[in-house]
Amino acid sequence: MQQLKLFNSYTGKKEIFKPIKKNSVGMYVCGPTVYNNVHLGNCRTFISFDLIFRYLKHLGYKVKYVRNITDVGHLENDSDFGEDRILKKAKIDKIEPMEVAQKYTIDFYETLSLFNVLPPSIEPTATGHIIEQIELIKKIIKKGFAYEVNGSVYFDVLKYDNKYKYGTLTNKKIDELFSNSRELSGQGDKKNLQDFALWKKAEKKHIMRWPSPWSDGFPGWHLECSAMSSKYLGNKFDIHGGGIDLKFPHHECEIAQCEAANDIKPVNYWLHANMLTLNNKKMSKSTGNNILPGEIINGKNNFFSKPINAEVIRFFILQAHYRSVLDISEKALLASEKGFKKLTDSLSLLENIKPSDKTIGFDIENWEKLCYDSMNDDFNSPILISNLFSAVKFINSINDGKSSVSINDLKVLSEKMKLFFFEILGLKITNKSDENINSKTDDLIKLILKYREKSRNERDFKTSDIIRDDLEKLGIIINDTESGTNYNSN
Amino acid sequence: MQQLKLFNSYTGKKEIFKPIKKNSVGMYVCGPTVYNNVHLGNCRTFISFDLIFRYLKHLGYKVKYVRNITDVGHLENDSDFGEDRILKKAKIDKIEPMEVAQKYTIDFYETLSLFNVLPPSIEPTATGHIIEQIELIKKIIKKGFAYEVNGSVYFDVLKYDNKYKYGTLTNKKIDELFSNSRELSGQGDKKNLQDFALWKKAEKKHIMRWPSPWSDGFPGWHLECSAMSSKYLGNKFDIHGGGIDLKFPHHECEIAQCEAANDIKPVNYWLHANMLTLNNKKMSKSTGNNILPGEIINGKNNFFSKPINAEVIRFFILQAHYRSVLDISEKALLASEKGFKKLTDSLSLLENIKPSDKTIGFDIENWEKLCYDSMNDDFNSPILISNLFSAVKFINSINDGKSSVSINDLKVLSEKMKLFFFEILGLKITNKSDENINSKTDDLIKLILKYREKSRNERDFKTSDIIRDDLEKLGIIINDTESGTNYNSN
Repeated sequence: MQQLKLFNSYTGKKEIFKPIKKNSVGMYVCGPTVYNNVHLGNCRTFISFDLIFRYLKHLGYKVKYVRNITDVGHLENDSDFGEDRILKKAKIDKIEPMEVAQKYTIDFYETLSLFNVLPPSIEPTATGHIIEQIELIKKIIKKGFAYEVNGSVYFDVLKYDNKYKYGTLTNKKIDELFSNSRELSGQGDKKNLQDFALWKKAEKKHIMRWPSPWSDGFPGWHLECSAMSSKYLGNKFDIHGGGIDLKFPHHECEIAQCEAANDIKPVNYWLHANMLTLNNKKMSKSTGNNILPGEIINGKNNFFSKPINAEVIRFFILQAHYRSVLDISEKALLASEKGFKKLTDSLSLLENIKPSDKTIGFDIENWEKLCYDSMNDDFNSPILISNLFSAVKFINSINDGKSSVSINDLKVLSEKMKLFFFEILGLKITNKSDENINSKTDDLIKLILKYREKSRNERDFKTSDIIRDDLEKLGIIINDTESGTNYNSN
Repeated sequence: MQQLKLFNSYTGKKEIFKPIKKNSVGMYVCGPTVYNNVHLGNCRTFISFDLIFRYLKHLGYKVKYVRNITDVGHLENDSDFGEDRILKKAKIDKIEPMEVAQKYTIDFYETLSLFNVLPPSIEPTATGHIIEQIELIKKIIKKGFAYEVNGSVYFDVLKYDNKYKYGTLTNKKIDELFSNSRELSGQGDKKNLQDFALWKKAEKKHIMRWPSPWSDGFPGWHLECSAMSSKYLGNKFDIHGGGIDLKFPHHECEIAQCEAANDIKPVNYWLHANMLTLNNKKMSKSTGNNILPGEIINGKNNFFSKPINAEVIRFFILQAHYRSVLDISEKALLASEKGFKKLTDSLSLLENIKPSDKTIGFDIENWEKLCYDSMNDDFNSPILISNLFSAVKFINSINDGKSSVSINDLKVLSEKMKLFFFEILGLKITNKSDENINSKTDDLIKLILKYREKSRNERDFKTSDIIRDDLEKLGIIINDTESGTNYNSN
């Protein structure tokens, strides 16, 4: 079997994974800023690192997986001068910042749990680590890489760059990185435009504030990840992950902060999950090209003609490699749904396969090797899945009497199919009994939809709305589209 | 309708509830120490305050409900000298303290969600509020009610008692409270045995530690609730709740800390949920007279002969008033299960009740008043439930053709039954077991019969016949009787 290789964004190369401590892995992944419903692109990132977490554990590593919750300090436009995202939302919703954080932390947990994402080992919050952040700032100031102005503290990027080089993760020079005007959108008290805030003095109206040696204020966004990763994983740890959009400035700043404080690079392997696009365009609230995970699952959206199960969405996401851009579209989702059904049908079939004297038509040992090789090759889940489909073909062929399988091979096949499907890919099958009742209740729901259709044709919208509400009370969500009315039942 | 009255543990009287700020309620409830699986007694407390939260919201209050997570500082035997509970568990499980906290916080969320307990508005952690705790200690020292010895800070109970009186919640004198030797089990650096720790200097091996003006250490258990309640609810707020076992020393110490710091009593109404016993004995791990919520639900336990649904357990708990001791036993649980089924059957029946010209055999207006009166009388859920059973009797009697209900009364009856069952008591009807799968089909058939009834009322017999035929094709035979339409399904 091949050794596990990771694509290290830092070196731009696939490298054999060597943990710092034998049999243990320390992994930090940047979590969400809890100021709105978690978006689908974020879900892709967390599903990707869930795959990685699951596989590392399967390989026998004791994995300490830390994923943070950002509940303060992440300002609008990722800048040093915007409004705090959570504070802004609190004003809009007329509740307290921590009520905003609570609401969207719960949304985050519930959504990830729909996608069968395992909880990390530790889930620290930014507000829960103000002291650690203050201590880290003190250390950086002492080393000479940060300075205070008017109660705020800034990181001196040019001074750091002189000694250590800023931009080593993106492999760019500082001039290239900051040529974009957005990054230069305000200097304020900073010595240089490239500097970034470690601590911000709070204005009077800013209710999220803590005392510090410099002012009553709040920490900068980049700082929290450095403070929390080093607290729980040490000054040097194995894997740091996150969405690709965080490479610059967030991850470059993390490296700078840690190196300035501790004189070592904090991370051995940087892993970045790529973007998710919707119908080949960037997802964005402002353009309306945007969909929430729950909206795909309940079918209430303007993009897809029917609801799609959370399992199928997870499967769809894992059918692409985490480093590729993935486009979500009706066509692609329906293809995944079909593929997912093929796979689960085959798992059922497998339960009833009768072994023969020998295996004909398939090399189980080689198949198992190929499955592991795909995962060992930078967690290549699409190749793993295509290997699972080879097995599906073989299983169908046994069922058709065209191939056969020995008792030992059947055991391996069954065990490994389940291992990869459930444990590694983290997929699940919705209850079989649920499927059975679907056919019973299907007919009744269709009758009701027929009556509703009649009301609609008669322009009796009051009745059709009542029927919609009646069904919703039973957990049956209906969705009117141009091609007819669909429903999703939970 | 009566005004809402609460039994205030502080005065020992039922009092009319007057919020500090019109239409708003600030409520703090002591949450779990996340060092093991949440136990059933805790669940009872959180279900009790969930009832209170739901009812206050129903009355139209904007409720800010804060419930903390204790993840540091709660020592063995609630003493100042035991081992930190989380740290002890971390050593046993060979993981980090924050991994222990994460594991049992997740268990806590999952268990409460089984019981349909709503999340609070804010859920602060003790480790997330170290700065606030340090600031509060500074304030208490400044006021002269705390002193530092060898890096630890203690609250001066006797000095506080001299000025304000300690023991006002339990209404006991300090000598009575501390006559028990357990409370006196170690004086250490304290000036007086009655003093308690606000800050403890961490020993070398103690890995949960933060810098402070006095030492690298950690906060005392009582302190966190004072720091977090005042941060999120202000120095004086409406309701403070918790389990009755927390009255002394925890809540007495909270009052002392807040009053010493701010010179006012922090809370207007103290509410305490009573104990849960198992087969008339105190639950205790050491004696084995102990059961986890999950063990009742999955039926894997030595106490009960069959699994019991989470909804039924919640119902069972709400069948006792929150201030009474409640004993859980096989007999009592099975009685609740039977009662719960009666209630849910009646809710289904209600969907198909045909109204008459007038109501005979029941005074709906008075019934509604009695329901509200029971809840307004210190959230008396058992009386509310007995009122719901009066309605069940009436509904059955209509179904048997012995009583009748007018269309307006039926509307009120149906709305209020659902309001109290789902929204206030927070009960639900699962659709997971086979029984409930049938009930989903049932619900759909009942919907169809409701639409058919409408056609019949409109004398649109063509439509009602089509519906009859549609159902017949699915093997559902309907039968119109004087008291409504029945059906047989095969």
